[in-house]
Amino acid sequence: MSQHPSEPSPILFFDTINAHQRTAALKAAIDLDLFTAIGKGNATAQSIAQSCAASERGVRILCDYLTVIGFLTKEDGRYELTPDSSMFLDRRSPAYVGGATEFLLSPLLTDGFKDIAAAVRKGGTVMKDAGTVTPENPVWVDFARGMAPLIGMPAQLMAQLVIGESKQKMKVLDIAAGHGLFGIAFAQANPNAEVVAQDWQQVLEVAQENARAAGVSERFTTLPGSAFEVEFGTGFDVILLTNFLHHFDAPTCEELLRKVHAALGEGGRAVTLEFVPNEDRVSPPGAAMFSLVMLGSTPSGDAYTFSEFESMFRNAGFSHSEFHPLPPTMEQVVISQK
Amino acid sequence: MSQHPSEPSPILFFDTINAHQRTAALKAAIDLDLFTAIGKGNATAQSIAQSCAASERGVRILCDYLTVIGFLTKEDGRYELTPDSSMFLDRRSPAYVGGATEFLLSPLLTDGFKDIAAAVRKGGTVMKDAGTVTPENPVWVDFARGMAPLIGMPAQLMAQLVIGESKQKMKVLDIAAGHGLFGIAFAQANPNAEVVAQDWQQVLEVAQENARAAGVSERFTTLPGSAFEVEFGTGFDVILLTNFLHHFDAPTCEELLRKVHAALGEGGRAVTLEFVPNEDRVSPPGAAMFSLVMLGSTPSGDAYTFSEFESMFRNAGFSHSEFHPLPPTMEQVVISQK
Repeated sequence: MSQHPSEPSPILFFDTINAHQRTAALKAAIDLDLFTAIGKGNATAQSIAQSCAASERGVRILCDYLTVIGFLTKEDGRYELTPDSSMFLDRRSPAYVGGATEFLLSPLLTDGFKDIAAAVRKGGTVMKDAGTVTPENPVWVDFARGMAPLIGMPAQLMAQLVIGESKQKMKVLDIAAGHGLFGIAFAQANPNAEVVAQDWQQVLEVAQENARAAGVSERFTTLPGSAFEVEFGTGFDVILLTNFLHHFDAPTCEELLRKVHAALGEGGRAVTLEFVPNEDRVSPPGAAMFSLVMLGSTPSGDAYTFSEFESMFRNAGFSHSEFHPLPPTMEQVVISQK
Repeated sequence: MSQHPSEPSPILFFDTINAHQRTAALKAAIDLDLFTAIGKGNATAQSIAQSCAASERGVRILCDYLTVIGFLTKEDGRYELTPDSSMFLDRRSPAYVGGATEFLLSPLLTDGFKDIAAAVRKGGTVMKDAGTVTPENPVWVDFARGMAPLIGMPAQLMAQLVIGESKQKMKVLDIAAGHGLFGIAFAQANPNAEVVAQDWQQVLEVAQENARAAGVSERFTTLPGSAFEVEFGTGFDVILLTNFLHHFDAPTCEELLRKVHAALGEGGRAVTLEFVPNEDRVSPPGAAMFSLVMLGSTPSGDAYTFSEFESMFRNAGFSHSEFHPLPPTMEQVVISQK
């Protein structure tokens, strides 16, 4: 933000120490349903304020701030949504993600950031019990509901990457299924795919709702319990591990992967969706930054590199693993062959 | 952070809703004195961890995160400070700003951001009493101590802008002086300048320490109390209003400016240092974003545009006002002539 970026400047310090204000401003706009008000055609602070039952002064200041940080445009005192805000933040859009704030800003996640220095001293979360990996933690119901609108597109991309146009009979196990949308995407892409979704019972209720809505509930069964404890069964063609392994340390992951290996049929594949930083661990930014979330919220989770995943899968008996970016998402896919 | 920024993407949403993590990571690094450890030559996670009495795993994750957001560089697993981090975040640097976090992240400021939606509905702070403008609020002692290292350079730039090389006899009144460094810069630039610093008594004790350290205490007197209540005296050549008017609404500012006008001698000037957004209120970013801080933390403060300042000063009896950016700071100067 400095006009003279080549001189030493405290601008990055200020911008970062005040970054919590960006979170607060965006949360406020979602709470006020301000993006929907603008999407409906309210363009002036006065008109938006009326629609949101808020003060004109407050709306003007918030809209200006949202314009500076890139969520709105402003011309001649009139605000408009950007294409991204229109797609993801107008409640009338099917891709509305505002509900994800309930998960992303739930105390169970933000409490882990109240004292990152303590987590760095200790090497893991300082939240009581095991942070977000406590059994039956209700945060995962918020997760299953709030994050769903974000998952449709990545889930379809992943199903296409893994099975392409295949319509062969196929047994899919979705571990820690959450909203269930990854398994559901396989069932939608292939009318001969049968999906077993495993998660805590209360979370699976959300997944079942989603399977019904997607019209695949006849090929969608559930397996309630802990991924480390329930019997998976055998003969699966594909086993999905989406955003799950990052919660645990490598020995725990390997223990689970041995179980996954045993549950796969001959030629079966484990499909891991993860934030996979490059070997330098500082790129790409989205994947690399995820490691801190795990430091703050789990005892020993991490964002693993591809070589770390390759080693875990090899130790668990898999023959080889392949790496695939999944643009435009921030995540990557590792496909590991039995 | 997307590889395909032209497609609609929720990346800005994620980046913003998680921005509070940037604040937390930077605060942790300052709490751990991690930048000083690296400045002293500790380059690996292991060596930094030893120096900071922290876990290697936690330090590795935090340093990678700080690299992604621009505070460190990393090559072959070795971390180094950027020039900005070296100047502003290594405790051994005279420009160390780490202490400013005590003010910038004090509950009195951050509490105002707990529910910005409520502040937008109401049109001002929802903190009890008057937020940061409560009389004798102890936050201003933290401010005076923590922000001082940041002020030396802007204070010198401002003194140079206003009085240049002048060594004429000069009476300067520094309103809401805080750390006192703006007045002190005038006393240092001109050995014939006498400075009166006004603020709450407990804050002026910090200013007096700073005046003694700068060797100007013989020409530095104090005027304890509220700027709205104490008698300023008369015949001042320069009256400084640095980061003060933004706490109040325009009628309150005008009331004070009439008092300032009366205290100036013939040809005297009021010098206002402020976050002054352009007339569009959404540029430049640093000044434009400041408005939200005032919405969250004061009943009716704001970041005023130059035309708004011009009108306030005109209404208070000033003949004309001039606008000056003060690069490389994020602030601007308004000089108003009696």
